[in-house]
Amino acid sequence: MSEPLNFQSIIMTLQDFWAKQGCLIWQPYYTQVGAGTMNPATFLRVLGPEPWNVGYVEPSIRPDDGRYGENPNRMQMHYQFQVILKPDPGNPQELYLKSLQALGIDPRQHDIRFVEDNWESPALGAWGLGWEVWLDGQEITQYTYFQQAGGLILDPVSVEITYGLERIAIALQGVSSFRDIQWSPTLTDGDINIQAEQEHSKYYFEIADVERLRQMYDLFEAEAKACLDRGLVLPAHDYVLKCSHTFNVLDTRGAIGVTERQALFGRMREVSRRVAEAYLDQRQRLEFPFLSESNGEAQVLKGQRPAAPGVSRPEANANATAPLLVEIGTEELPAGDLEAALEQLRARLPRLLEELRLAHAELYILGTPRRLLIHVEALAAMQTDLEQVIKGPPAKRAFGPDGAPTPAAEGFARSKGLALSDLQVREMDGGRYVVAVVRQVGRAALNVLAEALPGLIAGLRFEKSMRWNSSNVPFSRPIRWLLAIFGAGETCQVVPFEYAGMASGDTTRGLRFRQPEEQTIRSPQEYYEFLAGQGIVLDPQRRRAGISNQIERLAAEIEGVIPEDPDLLAEVTNLVEAPTALRGTFDPHHLKLPREVLISVMKKHQRYFPVLSAGGSGEEMLPYFIAVRNGDGQGLEVVTDGNEHVIRARFADADFFVREDLKQPLEDYLPRLDTLTFQTKLGSMLDKSRRIMRLVDDLASRIGLGEAGRKVALRAAELCKADLATKMVVEMTSLQGQMGRYYALQSGETSEVAQAIFEHYLPRFAGDQIPGSRPGLVVGLADRLDSLVGLFAADLAPSGNKDPFAQRRAALGLVQILIGMDLEFDLRLALSLAGMHLPIAASQESQQAVFEFIVERLRNVLLERGARYDAVEAVLAAQANNPAGAARAVEPLEAWIARPDWHTILPAFARCVRITREFRQRFPVDEGRFAEPSEQALFQALTTAEAMDRAAGSVDDFLSAFLTMIPAINQFFEDVLVMAEDERLRHNRLGVLQRIAALAEDVADLSRLEGF
Amino acid sequence: MSEPLNFQSIIMTLQDFWAKQGCLIWQPYYTQVGAGTMNPATFLRVLGPEPWNVGYVEPSIRPDDGRYGENPNRMQMHYQFQVILKPDPGNPQELYLKSLQALGIDPRQHDIRFVEDNWESPALGAWGLGWEVWLDGQEITQYTYFQQAGGLILDPVSVEITYGLERIAIALQGVSSFRDIQWSPTLTDGDINIQAEQEHSKYYFEIADVERLRQMYDLFEAEAKACLDRGLVLPAHDYVLKCSHTFNVLDTRGAIGVTERQALFGRMREVSRRVAEAYLDQRQRLEFPFLSESNGEAQVLKGQRPAAPGVSRPEANANATAPLLVEIGTEELPAGDLEAALEQLRARLPRLLEELRLAHAELYILGTPRRLLIHVEALAAMQTDLEQVIKGPPAKRAFGPDGAPTPAAEGFARSKGLALSDLQVREMDGGRYVVAVVRQVGRAALNVLAEALPGLIAGLRFEKSMRWNSSNVPFSRPIRWLLAIFGAGETCQVVPFEYAGMASGDTTRGLRFRQPEEQTIRSPQEYYEFLAGQGIVLDPQRRRAGISNQIERLAAEIEGVIPEDPDLLAEVTNLVEAPTALRGTFDPHHLKLPREVLISVMKKHQRYFPVLSAGGSGEEMLPYFIAVRNGDGQGLEVVTDGNEHVIRARFADADFFVREDLKQPLEDYLPRLDTLTFQTKLGSMLDKSRRIMRLVDDLASRIGLGEAGRKVALRAAELCKADLATKMVVEMTSLQGQMGRYYALQSGETSEVAQAIFEHYLPRFAGDQIPGSRPGLVVGLADRLDSLVGLFAADLAPSGNKDPFAQRRAALGLVQILIGMDLEFDLRLALSLAGMHLPIAASQESQQAVFEFIVERLRNVLLERGARYDAVEAVLAAQANNPAGAARAVEPLEAWIARPDWHTILPAFARCVRITREFRQRFPVDEGRFAEPSEQALFQALTTAEAMDRAAGSVDDFLSAFLTMIPAINQFFEDVLVMAEDERLRHNRLGVLQRIAALAEDVADLSRLEGF
Repeated sequence: MSEPLNFQSIIMTLQDFWAKQGCLIWQPYYTQVGAGTMNPATFLRVLGPEPWNVGYVEPSIRPDDGRYGENPNRMQMHYQFQVILKPDPGNPQELYLKSLQALGIDPRQHDIRFVEDNWESPALGAWGLGWEVWLDGQEITQYTYFQQAGGLILDPVSVEITYGLERIAIALQGVSSFRDIQWSPTLTDGDINIQAEQEHSKYYFEIADVERLRQMYDLFEAEAKACLDRGLVLPAHDYVLKCSHTFNVLDTRGAIGVTERQALFGRMREVSRRVAEAYLDQRQRLEFPFLSESNGEAQVLKGQRPAAPGVSRPEANANATAPLLVEIGTEELPAGDLEAALEQLRARLPRLLEELRLAHAELYILGTPRRLLIHVEALAAMQTDLEQVIKGPPAKRAFGPDGAPTPAAEGFARSKGLALSDLQVREMDGGRYVVAVVRQVGRAALNVLAEALPGLIAGLRFEKSMRWNSSNVPFSRPIRWLLAIFGAGETCQVVPFEYAGMASGDTTRGLRFRQPEEQTIRSPQEYYEFLAGQGIVLDPQRRRAGISNQIERLAAEIEGVIPEDPDLLAEVTNLVEAPTALRGTFDPHHLKLPREVLISVMKKHQRYFPVLSAGGSGEEMLPYFIAVRNGDGQGLEVVTDGNEHVIRARFADADFFVREDLKQPLEDYLPRLDTLTFQTKLGSMLDKSRRIMRLVDDLASRIGLGEAGRKVALRAAELCKADLATKMVVEMTSLQGQMGRYYALQSGETSEVAQAIFEHYLPRFAGDQIPGSRPGLVVGLADRLDSLVGLFAADLAPSGNKDPFAQRRAALGLVQILIGMDLEFDLRLALSLAGMHLPIAASQESQQAVFEFIVERLRNVLLERGARYDAVEAVLAAQANNPAGAARAVEPLEAWIARPDWHTILPAFARCVRITREFRQRFPVDEGRFAEPSEQALFQALTTAEAMDRAAGSVDDFLSAFLTMIPAINQFFEDVLVMAEDERLRHNRLGVLQRIAALAEDVADLSRLEGF
Repeated sequence: MSEPLNFQSIIMTLQDFWAKQGCLIWQPYYTQVGAGTMNPATFLRVLGPEPWNVGYVEPSIRPDDGRYGENPNRMQMHYQFQVILKPDPGNPQELYLKSLQALGIDPRQHDIRFVEDNWESPALGAWGLGWEVWLDGQEITQYTYFQQAGGLILDPVSVEITYGLERIAIALQGVSSFRDIQWSPTLTDGDINIQAEQEHSKYYFEIADVERLRQMYDLFEAEAKACLDRGLVLPAHDYVLKCSHTFNVLDTRGAIGVTERQALFGRMREVSRRVAEAYLDQRQRLEFPFLSESNGEAQVLKGQRPAAPGVSRPEANANATAPLLVEIGTEELPAGDLEAALEQLRARLPRLLEELRLAHAELYILGTPRRLLIHVEALAAMQTDLEQVIKGPPAKRAFGPDGAPTPAAEGFARSKGLALSDLQVREMDGGRYVVAVVRQVGRAALNVLAEALPGLIAGLRFEKSMRWNSSNVPFSRPIRWLLAIFGAGETCQVVPFEYAGMASGDTTRGLRFRQPEEQTIRSPQEYYEFLAGQGIVLDPQRRRAGISNQIERLAAEIEGVIPEDPDLLAEVTNLVEAPTALRGTFDPHHLKLPREVLISVMKKHQRYFPVLSAGGSGEEMLPYFIAVRNGDGQGLEVVTDGNEHVIRARFADADFFVREDLKQPLEDYLPRLDTLTFQTKLGSMLDKSRRIMRLVDDLASRIGLGEAGRKVALRAAELCKADLATKMVVEMTSLQGQMGRYYALQSGETSEVAQAIFEHYLPRFAGDQIPGSRPGLVVGLADRLDSLVGLFAADLAPSGNKDPFAQRRAALGLVQILIGMDLEFDLRLALSLAGMHLPIAASQESQQAVFEFIVERLRNVLLERGARYDAVEAVLAAQANNPAGAARAVEPLEAWIARPDWHTILPAFARCVRITREFRQRFPVDEGRFAEPSEQALFQALTTAEAMDRAAGSVDDFLSAFLTMIPAINQFFEDVLVMAEDERLRHNRLGVLQRIAALAEDVADLSRLEGF
């Protein structure tokens, strides 16, 4: 390579490259868009059946990414080069990688990776699955298989390749910031664009007038609709884009709350859907002109794999065995999908072989992101035979007294294709029957496998699947080759089948960019040797262990340790085929950033392992990170440099946020909360935090908080949402609460207040910790109660799968906290208190609905602990209003149910309940009216039980007390006719039984139990 | 040439070409712009001293050009390729022409022309001078030297080259419509863009919501200002662009009237100016970074002409003569400027040579659009000597009685550097004086010319001049070479001088694309032969005659004639160096279009000669046109094809308009007039036409219109503005009235009404016809009266040079009609009638101001006819209220003034006037009080004169009557003391004189005459 390409030459080279691949070269769109996807050359052309191949530059505006020109690679405007290939040409990854080579990127000197990154545009009703492409840790391209746009399923699927041109230029030119990118021979990107970065950032963050922008949004939307009403697609789409940009600016101004965001997305999505439908109608009316015009044209794109030639299938020796090797070659599988696929194969393959009656020795299920491998040792070449005994008529009907076959026997034999002489008589089912013994002779494994393997692959399930070609088969990611050989060397045969438009064959592929990339395989031995030669570690366990060793060694070299993080290790293991770890450094100055920020950035964004100091508290971070590349040590310095550049930019970004945020104390962010809408009817986030304060005030004493604690809680409530207005949290929402705590401490708040701010979000996810302090607890309760009661009152209860405000999580958190802290709590009272602070009325019905919604979560929590369904129901019927109590009650109840004498306890109680159940009236008991001694005795036992010291809601106390009465109860029912003619007697007896039944009140409704 | 380039390859080729010329390759802007000029890469970067060379595509949106995809080359969106070269590289035209060759355009096979087309953006406060570049009659490029942007003078000037890519592709690919342009190997422009053309056209013309767009405009403007208030340049500029696009859409919807347009332009210009100033400030604060960075970089662009090497200057022989040849080589001069330059040279050169004391034989001043030639035969090689006689003291003071010189003589001699003996005594100025005779010896012509020629060139004046390089010298168009040789052959010398950054030399250039393009010239003979060899006709008269012959011959071949049109012929003559006429045809079907449309399109847009049938009425048009190319016959078919394509598109466009317009009767356009604002305070054009109707009603009887005529006038008034809402008139405003007449006839109106609609605009320009019918006249009067009275009442009287509503023309027209039709008219009454219909009050002051404004025009009209100033004043003082009367009166008055006895007439009248002038009171005359016979006689003469039959306002009648009284007047003043002691006598005599003075009332105020 001579001089690296300048920026404009990169663009011209890509135009030229893709033009030669048959793409139409198009131009940027004439209105501000966040991405080339929004250009109608993508958004509309991906719809419908017509082929479309296009490439174009798109200056992409993302107000939120404005950094005043200070970040090395984050800008309010960046340049994309967008490519759409429709339909999938069969080898889009290879084409893409060739384009990188055309730009002068030598792949052997770099680490090029496809890292799962799915894409969704809520505004456009569009989504797709794919990857970020990483060049030395830097995302340089977004590569997506479009599945849906404008709410419409795409068929065929389009491949979208979106290059981030500045990122590529930075890597190519070896500069450290977009400002230094050589744009032309004489000018840099900074020379021509820095002013725009500074000014637009300032405009978007500080100046754009919220009121005016809202008006613009409405006007644009109205025009879009007016256009649609008249059937105009493109003008409507233009206005959708204007809405979208205006929304982005409003968002950057911090003017859009969570709920308003949903509403606006909904509005945009709706119009986008109409646009998409109208476009499709239009093309249909035109009879999809590109279908005919460029028939086969799209297929000119190379790489469509020809079907494998027919393979001869010699008869197999009945006792012979041979190894089976099946490799499903894919584009890079997401880590989770790889895991899932391997698990499913491990579970299903043995079952499948058994069903197929194929004997075998050892099974191996291995895999990397690019391949799933099945290796069966010594697989029988033939199925075992199958003998089936089919029952016919009874022997006495089949043969006459003379032993001669009757017409019944003849018919049966004929129907089974047997001679009469083949029929046998057997004892079965308690009689003697004529049977036909049908023998199914085993078929050749080759044929059986050829039939069965497609089903095995098709049976794999993933969290999200995609389609990519005309087969419309769904899979985690596109399947690009299928290796399936049976036997080894001379006897090796291809197991011939087709799946997802691919024919099986006997070639595999090596590590990308290693030579040779393709290889014919004639035996497992050859296969393993070839992959090993490529540095590929097929076995995930070995891969993990290898990575673990490497990273620990690299950490040890600098006296560091890697904190335990099995999830991260597992993910990284599934991201590479040939792992080589590398250690990079970053400016120690960044260590001043909050630890959570550093770790979040390293892990979430980059899948790097952070390094802690081996000495000291073990909490001190070192200015290093460890990354794992895919490939060997070649060019490792370049790769390391690249990764260091990335983390530098990432930390610079975080640093920018935190520095900006610290310019004022946390308290000063409160006014900004007023611009964040929580929900239209419920006001801003500021309104919400004020309500939280009032509710905290109501609840504090009720949960036993003293004056000091109450003050902490009130201050924490006041500040609990303030960090939502800080830049760092706007950027990484997952840091909410953590940043609140950090900023609170930096702002001079007490550590209790800071902690409570953090804790009020707990638990954030399943298995997360719960608040450790009462102030944190009460703020968390108040927050959730306010959300739930408010949203229900605003008629926004979750329905079906829709839960945009995460109310399920809120209710669940509420329940988990109460249970976790074993806190007595009057849920109905709390709900009604919350309702009183709302700006809208919370009706009885809505309060009841919230209550039931929360109880539903409580029910799930209890059931998920493994409790008996009926026990849970019994407890909830009585104690749902106090979740902690309910939780406490279930286990004891189950213990009672498990008692051997339960069959005497429950019926005794049941008799008392059943007979009284129909009466709503409570009958007073008059001791003077007892007619029988057993009445008297029962009443005695009752008053004794009633007098016992019982903890509220305690199942044990209740049942222990009841237990003492059982003999008296049984005697009573033996001696006494409760429903006596004499009304006074009757009522008196019912009164006693009612008081017995009442013992269970607020404990459990035993009538819900099985056996009641 | 193999396959012609497809559209995307054209773009990529241009990117590549200009990148190689050192241009930065930039991208289209992210908001809708009407042209690449609006991209900040042009609008801002052309400001200030920094070099900037850039090239980029710009999809340019012009809502008004939407044709629903039906026009071959007019679209709401077309693609520009924009190039900016700053500073001027010295050879931008050559670079441009090379880029066309890179695209595969063989210039020898085509007619490539630079046709004057100056550019102005009222919204951006920008203008420049330059050309349309024509390829076979088709405008393919706009080529401009930017002089000003954002209201700021540009220094250095930028060269802007704007390619119209579709036009180029159409020519290159030989297709007939943008729809057929091959965009990529498989898809056409139509395939991918037709839907956009149809839909956006529909949106812009039919659907865009005027109210919402107005709101958007205001919001955008407010944001722009908010940005500027905070010092942000680029975000403000973005919003200016959004304003501009929104304005264009509103305009296309027909929602913007003439006056509102001015107001909106003013608003946008103001913001643009602020943007430009803020940008410049910003760059200044940054110390103009590109100045240092790319020092000399801009100069890499080739073609800067080195200064000519020094030329030796041998002493010339005193009596020798030699030919002088000076050629100023330029980029293509506008036709008018060429004419003007030749005229000025013809006038000045002889004077200059005389001043320089250079004798010469014949002078030739010749020229073509690319060269101005001075050829002087036998120019003296040396100046003639100069003898100056300088007057000293009187001889008697210079020499004593003894004849010895006095100190006065000595001092005089010393001061002139002479010896005493050199002094002479001469008779002069009526005395004898000492004189010094000073002799200035002639210098070599070469030196004198070298000093004088720059001044000669600098003295040339043009209607508009431009600067182009760092010399900042203004000229009509850039000067690119200076040939200046004196002598021929062996003795030929370059006259060495520099001008406008160019050094003179001895080379000329031939016709573009002919070989050789450059040629050394050593004599006039060589020069003429070289140019003749190139086909260049230097002499404009010969060129004109040649063209005339060619076009007549071509017309005769198809039995046609060319209608006389000296202006067109003169213009075409000045557009070419080597004229070759060609005849093209068009679809006879277009002959159905109104004749005015056909001719306007041919002449105004294309400078084609229309062809009339030689037989018949001489009015019948033939489906042919004749164009004149620059060059010889090579490729003439291609050139003809190209021109035919152009006229086809032009006519298709006109046809589109007319067809669209005829879809409804003219009357139905009236409601649309309500959306055309005439002026905010004065309402819409519909309001205006209703006022015109009412005023016509008022005026009809007053100008003697009968009932039938009145009805015609009222109907015409109602419809007179309707055509403003038609597409054809929106497109070519100059057709207003003409289209009105045409559409009226097509809509079934009577021919009288149609004619009146047309005539109400008459006269449209100096020398135009005036209305031929009374209805046309009265509508025209009413229209103008309403405009004038209304605009003055709205405080919008013209001031200084500003006359945005063309009120001067309106007033002038009013006067011209009244005079032209010799119509008695009470102007004040008419003004007050007009005032009564206005929606706002027309105060006395404003009425008076209008009156004076009109009278001012009347004065000019009368003066321009050559009338005496005092006669005009005298008449206007009495008859301004009736312009026709005033006009009638002036000439007779002048005739009287010219009479030999005028010196007796005027004083007689003056005596009567002067003595009575101070009395405001009118004294009654009592015959009984006459004290003297001459009083009685005068009174007798007076009553006789008063009784004479006089036409109103007639000067002749008045003065003829007065003439009879003169003897009596003279006698009276001899005999009578007017100012008698006796008051009654005095008053009686004054009364008589007052009645004499009163004879002039409503005729002329003779006191305004010289000699009064």
